[in-house]
Amino acid sequence: MWRRNIIHLKTFGASVCKRTVINARSLTTQPLAPQCIGQQPLNIGASSARHYSHKSAPLPEPFSIEDSSTENVNSFTYRTHTCGKLRASNTGEKVSLCGWVQYLRLSKFLLLRDAYGIVQCTVGPVSIDFSNIPLESVVKIHGEVTRRPQNAVNSEMPTGEIEVIIDRLEVLNMAENLPFNLREYQKPKEQIRMQHRYIDLRFPEMQSILRLRSQMLHNMRKFLVEQHGFVEVETPTLFCQTPGGAREFVVPTHHAGLFYSLVQSPQQFKQMLMSGGIDRYFQVARCYRDETTRPDRQPEFTQLDIEMSFTNLHGVLSMIESLIVDTFPNLLQKPPFRRITYKYALENYGTDKPNVQYDLKLKNIKELFPEKANDSDFSAYALPYPAALGKVTTKTKEQIRQIAKKYNVKVVLDHDIHKAFTKDLEVKLKNITGNENSSIISIGDLENACNCLGEIRLIIASLLESKNLLKLKETTEILWVVDFPLFTKGNNGLETCHHPFTSPHPEDMHLLDSDPLSVRSLAYDLVMNGNEIGGGSVRVHNVRLQEKLLKMLRMDAAKLRHFLNALQSGCPPHAGIALGIDRLVSMVCNTESIRDVIAFPKTHEGKDPLSGAPNAISDEDKEYYHIVSK
Amino acid sequence: MWRRNIIHLKTFGASVCKRTVINARSLTTQPLAPQCIGQQPLNIGASSARHYSHKSAPLPEPFSIEDSSTENVNSFTYRTHTCGKLRASNTGEKVSLCGWVQYLRLSKFLLLRDAYGIVQCTVGPVSIDFSNIPLESVVKIHGEVTRRPQNAVNSEMPTGEIEVIIDRLEVLNMAENLPFNLREYQKPKEQIRMQHRYIDLRFPEMQSILRLRSQMLHNMRKFLVEQHGFVEVETPTLFCQTPGGAREFVVPTHHAGLFYSLVQSPQQFKQMLMSGGIDRYFQVARCYRDETTRPDRQPEFTQLDIEMSFTNLHGVLSMIESLIVDTFPNLLQKPPFRRITYKYALENYGTDKPNVQYDLKLKNIKELFPEKANDSDFSAYALPYPAALGKVTTKTKEQIRQIAKKYNVKVVLDHDIHKAFTKDLEVKLKNITGNENSSIISIGDLENACNCLGEIRLIIASLLESKNLLKLKETTEILWVVDFPLFTKGNNGLETCHHPFTSPHPEDMHLLDSDPLSVRSLAYDLVMNGNEIGGGSVRVHNVRLQEKLLKMLRMDAAKLRHFLNALQSGCPPHAGIALGIDRLVSMVCNTESIRDVIAFPKTHEGKDPLSGAPNAISDEDKEYYHIVSK
Repeated sequence: MWRRNIIHLKTFGASVCKRTVINARSLTTQPLAPQCIGQQPLNIGASSARHYSHKSAPLPEPFSIEDSSTENVNSFTYRTHTCGKLRASNTGEKVSLCGWVQYLRLSKFLLLRDAYGIVQCTVGPVSIDFSNIPLESVVKIHGEVTRRPQNAVNSEMPTGEIEVIIDRLEVLNMAENLPFNLREYQKPKEQIRMQHRYIDLRFPEMQSILRLRSQMLHNMRKFLVEQHGFVEVETPTLFCQTPGGAREFVVPTHHAGLFYSLVQSPQQFKQMLMSGGIDRYFQVARCYRDETTRPDRQPEFTQLDIEMSFTNLHGVLSMIESLIVDTFPNLLQKPPFRRITYKYALENYGTDKPNVQYDLKLKNIKELFPEKANDSDFSAYALPYPAALGKVTTKTKEQIRQIAKKYNVKVVLDHDIHKAFTKDLEVKLKNITGNENSSIISIGDLENACNCLGEIRLIIASLLESKNLLKLKETTEILWVVDFPLFTKGNNGLETCHHPFTSPHPEDMHLLDSDPLSVRSLAYDLVMNGNEIGGGSVRVHNVRLQEKLLKMLRMDAAKLRHFLNALQSGCPPHAGIALGIDRLVSMVCNTESIRDVIAFPKTHEGKDPLSGAPNAISDEDKEYYHIVSK
Repeated sequence: MWRRNIIHLKTFGASVCKRTVINARSLTTQPLAPQCIGQQPLNIGASSARHYSHKSAPLPEPFSIEDSSTENVNSFTYRTHTCGKLRASNTGEKVSLCGWVQYLRLSKFLLLRDAYGIVQCTVGPVSIDFSNIPLESVVKIHGEVTRRPQNAVNSEMPTGEIEVIIDRLEVLNMAENLPFNLREYQKPKEQIRMQHRYIDLRFPEMQSILRLRSQMLHNMRKFLVEQHGFVEVETPTLFCQTPGGAREFVVPTHHAGLFYSLVQSPQQFKQMLMSGGIDRYFQVARCYRDETTRPDRQPEFTQLDIEMSFTNLHGVLSMIESLIVDTFPNLLQKPPFRRITYKYALENYGTDKPNVQYDLKLKNIKELFPEKANDSDFSAYALPYPAALGKVTTKTKEQIRQIAKKYNVKVVLDHDIHKAFTKDLEVKLKNITGNENSSIISIGDLENACNCLGEIRLIIASLLESKNLLKLKETTEILWVVDFPLFTKGNNGLETCHHPFTSPHPEDMHLLDSDPLSVRSLAYDLVMNGNEIGGGSVRVHNVRLQEKLLKMLRMDAAKLRHFLNALQSGCPPHAGIALGIDRLVSMVCNTESIRDVIAFPKTHEGKDPLSGAPNAISDEDKEYYHIVSK
C-alpha cells in the first residue's frame, strides 16, 4: 500500500512516505536549458556548495521517525521506553511502557502501540486478566524485556525479536464507543475520519505526516536562521483590507461599523520590515483567504514567507534552491533548477505550472494558416501524441468539449482534422508533428488556445500512461517559471498578474505607458511536478513607480498611504517569495489532498468536522459587535 | 542609557539589553523553601544535567547580534560585508556595502548604517558629491577598507579603527519627507513612532529586540525538537466558541448567521492531539482575545503552547525549568525553581504572582481579634515595613484608599492603628511585626484582605526603594505557584479558576461534592520578578470527571461533544503549559510595554497605528457576509 519516496528529509532520517497513487500530476521530459534573466550576479552563501555533497541516509521503516543521537522522547514522562524502539539489545531490562491497546489475543498477548511503534506484551508468571479492556484503551505496563523463542520471532515487526513479560498492568483510561477501529484495512471514509480526527491521527500514516511536517519546518528554520542569518518576525493577522487579491475575512469589533480584515499574506508587513532594516526576514505565517469554493483550499493555510533586502531575482532563486536541497538532500535535481519563461511554458505546455515529468509539448502551427499571418489575435496550436493511443472515448471527447467551451476556443480532434480543414492542411500538420503522432488542434487567442491544450495535455498524458505509452520520470521535477507578464487584461482595464507590488522587468520599463500588456514582471513561480509550490517577485521600492502602477490598476492609493510612506522614507530594494507549506508537504507525502497533511482541516465548504463551526452566535455577541445577521 | 542585562541567550551571543527603567516590578527576598507536591517521580531527560555547566559567554555590544560560525548574512545579496562587522583585519579589502545614510559631514564623511552597525565612508581620490542625498536614503558603496590615521581612531565605535574609501556611490532609493530622524536623543513619542513603525524599527533597540525574539524562539524550538523529540503542530484559529474564558472575536461567513470564532488558545486542539497520539506537542501559537480594555494587552498575541502525554505536574515543571535554563544559560537561579502554594503566596505576598526580588511579607494578625476566632469570613493581615519610611504622603494615602475600596476591605494605616483599635492592640502588633517596623492593616475576607495588601505592598516597596530603604535583588527571581483552588465563587455559582479542563488535586477528590471551594487543582503558574509568564495544568482525561465538572460549572456539554468524545475514545493522561512570549521577551528586554517587543503592535484601543484598522467595509462585503452594521 505504501512505498518509499525518493524525497526524504535531512535530519533524524525522517522518512517520507508516498502512497502509490498515480495521478495526472505524477507523470518525464528532457531537461530544458535554463534561461538566463538579466541583472547583476550575486554572492552565493559560502556554505551552499557543500549541500551537494550530502549523502542520502538509509531509509527507515515508513512510519517511524528515528531518534537522533540527542533526542529523548521519554524525558519528563513516567515511561522508560517507547513501544516501537525496544530491540533484542534491551533484553533483561525492566521497562515501563505507556500506550494504546492495539490487539488482544488468547488472553495472553497484548499488542501495545504508541506513536513510535508496536510491541507484544505477554502474560508471564503474574496472573493478569485483560479480557475486559476495550481496544484503544490507554494502559501502562511494567515488565521485563525478553527474547522470543526462535519460532515466535516476527521478522516483519521491528520489535519482533522480543516481547515484554508483564509484571503489572494499569489501565490509565478506558476507551468507550469507538466509532471505528484502528485497522488500515478497515479505514473508514474521510468524513468519518475527520469527524473523529483525534482517533484518525493515531494511524501511522497521520503520525508520520505530522512528524515529517514538523521536522521539515524545523530544518527550514535551521537553514534560514543558523546558516543564513534570517530573522523570524511575527506579523499581525488582524489588519486592514488590501486592495486587489483574494476575498478577505472580516472581523467585527466592539466599535460599530469598524472591522479588521484577516490578512491573506504578510506582504505589506514584510515589505515594511525591509524599510525597517530587518534585511533578512522569514515567517512561517498563517494566512486567510475566503475562497472555499475552490477545490482543495482551506480558509486558513500556512506559508513560509521570506523577504530579503539588497538582493534581486537571482538572489531569491538561489536561496530557495539551497533551501530545498538542504531540506531534501537526496533530491536528484541539483541547483540551479531549470528556469523557463512564462511564454515558453505557455507555448510548450499550455500552462504556467508545467509538469515536465513527461514530454508531450504543444506545437505552434500558425504557419498552416497563412491567411491569418498578420492577425495577432489568432493562434493555432497542436498537441501531438502517439497515434498508438487510438481514438478517444466519447467520455473523453465530452471532457475536451467542456474545456474548449470554458476557454472559448475551437478544438479539433485528430480524426476530424481533414473534415474541419483540408486534407492538404492535415498533410502539412504531419510534417510538423511527425507521422507516428496524432494531434489535437486548438484555435483562438494565444492564452486561451494554449491553456485549453494545457488541460487536454493532462488528460491525454493520463490516458497514454494507462496504456503504457508514456513513461513518467520517477524523479521530482522542479523548475522556475519567470518573466510573467506584469498585467493582464481584465473586464475593466489592466489587472495585476501577481500583485500590485511586483516590479516591472527593467528591460521593459519603457513600454509601461505605450504597451503595458507586453511588459514583463520580475515575478517567479516555483513548480514541482506540475504544482505551483511557491511564488514571489522583486518588489517595487520606488514610491513614484508604485504610485504609477496603482494608478494604472485603478487602485486607491489612500488605502495604502502607510505602505507608500514606508517606500519613500528610505526603503531598500528587496525581493521575496512564499512557499505553500500545506501543498509542499502534500506533494512530498503524495497525499490526495492538503487535508491529509493538516492536523485539523476543514471540509470543502469550510466547515470544521469536529465542532460543526461555523456556528450561530448569541444575541449578546451580536449586540456587542453591532451586527445584525440577515 | 542602556545597561547589560543579567539574562542573555545561548547561541550567537545575542545580547539582551535592558533600559535602566526601575519600576515596582523590578525590586529581593530570602529564598523560599521549595514545597513539595505529591505524585510520582519522573525521568528527567539525561541531557538536563548538563545545562548547569553552561558558562556565560562574554557579552557583546548591546545592539549587535554576533555572527555564529556558520551564519552568513551576506549570502544571496549584492553586498560583500555588513557595515557593522568591518574591522582592522579587513584592511585592503574591496567591499560593497549597502545601507542607510546615517550622517553626512564636511562633504567628505558619510556614516553608513545597516542592521549590523555603522561604518565611516570617506571621499578619497575619486570625487563624490553626496551633498544632495537626504539622510536615511539607501545607498550602495563600493570602496576599499583602510586603517584610519591613529589620531582619527574612534574607540567608541566597533568599526572605529577603519574607514572605507569610496570608489563609487550608488543611490538605491532616496528618502523623502521623513517624519523624524534616527537620533536616540530626539526619539519621538510612541504614537509617532508607531505610526511610522517602518522607520522606528531601524533604531538599534528595536533591531536588537526583534532579533533577540527570533533567536529566543529558535533556541526554544531546538530544545524541544532536537533534545526532547517534541512535534510542532499547527492548529486552526478559525473554530467554534469555547464556553467560559475570554471574549472571542467572531468571523462572519458567507453562510447567513454562521460565524467562526478566533481561538483564544489551542487548548482543545492540543488535548485532542494527545488523544490522537501526538504525545509531545508544541506550537508557537497565535491567540486572539477581545479584551483591549485591559492594559498592555493585544488583540492577538503569541504563546509557546506545550502539551505532553504520560506525564504529571512534576514532568511539566521540570521540562519548563530545563527549557528556561537552556534558553538563558547564565540565569543565576538553577532548577528546581522554588514552588510555593497559592495559599502561601496569597497569605505572604497578597498575590498569586509575587515579586520575591525583595522581602516584605504580610503577617496574619487574626490572633489579635480573639472575638473573631471562629468567624471564617474574618481575616486580618498586617504589612510591616521599615518605620524609617515615615508617614506616607496624602497622594499615597489616596491610592491606598482606592485600593481598599476596590477590594471592599477595611485598611488602617500605621499612625491610625491606635485610634482605630486600641493602644493594647498596637502594642501586641509590635510584638508580631517588630519594633523597627510600621504596619498597614487590612481586614476583610481572606482573599480581599490579602490582595489589597498585595497591591499596597508594591507601592510601599517602590517608596522604600526610592529612599534606599529596600534593596532589590539584581537577579531574576523565578518561582512556581501551585495548588490553586479549582473553583472560585462567582455571582451565579461556581466558576473555574483556570479553565474547565483542569484536573482537581487527587488528594481533594473526595471534597468535590461536599466542599468544592476547598478543592485544590493541579494548575500551576510560572512567575518571574512578579509577572506571570506562563501557566498550565494537569488536564482531566476521564470523560466522566470532565462531564461532572462541566455540570458543576453549568456549562453546556453539548458544545463540547467533540472534545468529550476525544476523552472517551482512548485519551492518555496529559498535562501542559503555555508561556506568554510577548510578556517573556518584554521582561527579558525590560521594556515598559509588550508593544515594544512586537513588530507591529496595536494601540491600547486595538487600533493599528499604520493603517488605522479596524476600518469600515464595503456594502458588497456586508452583503456577502449577511451582516448589517448597527
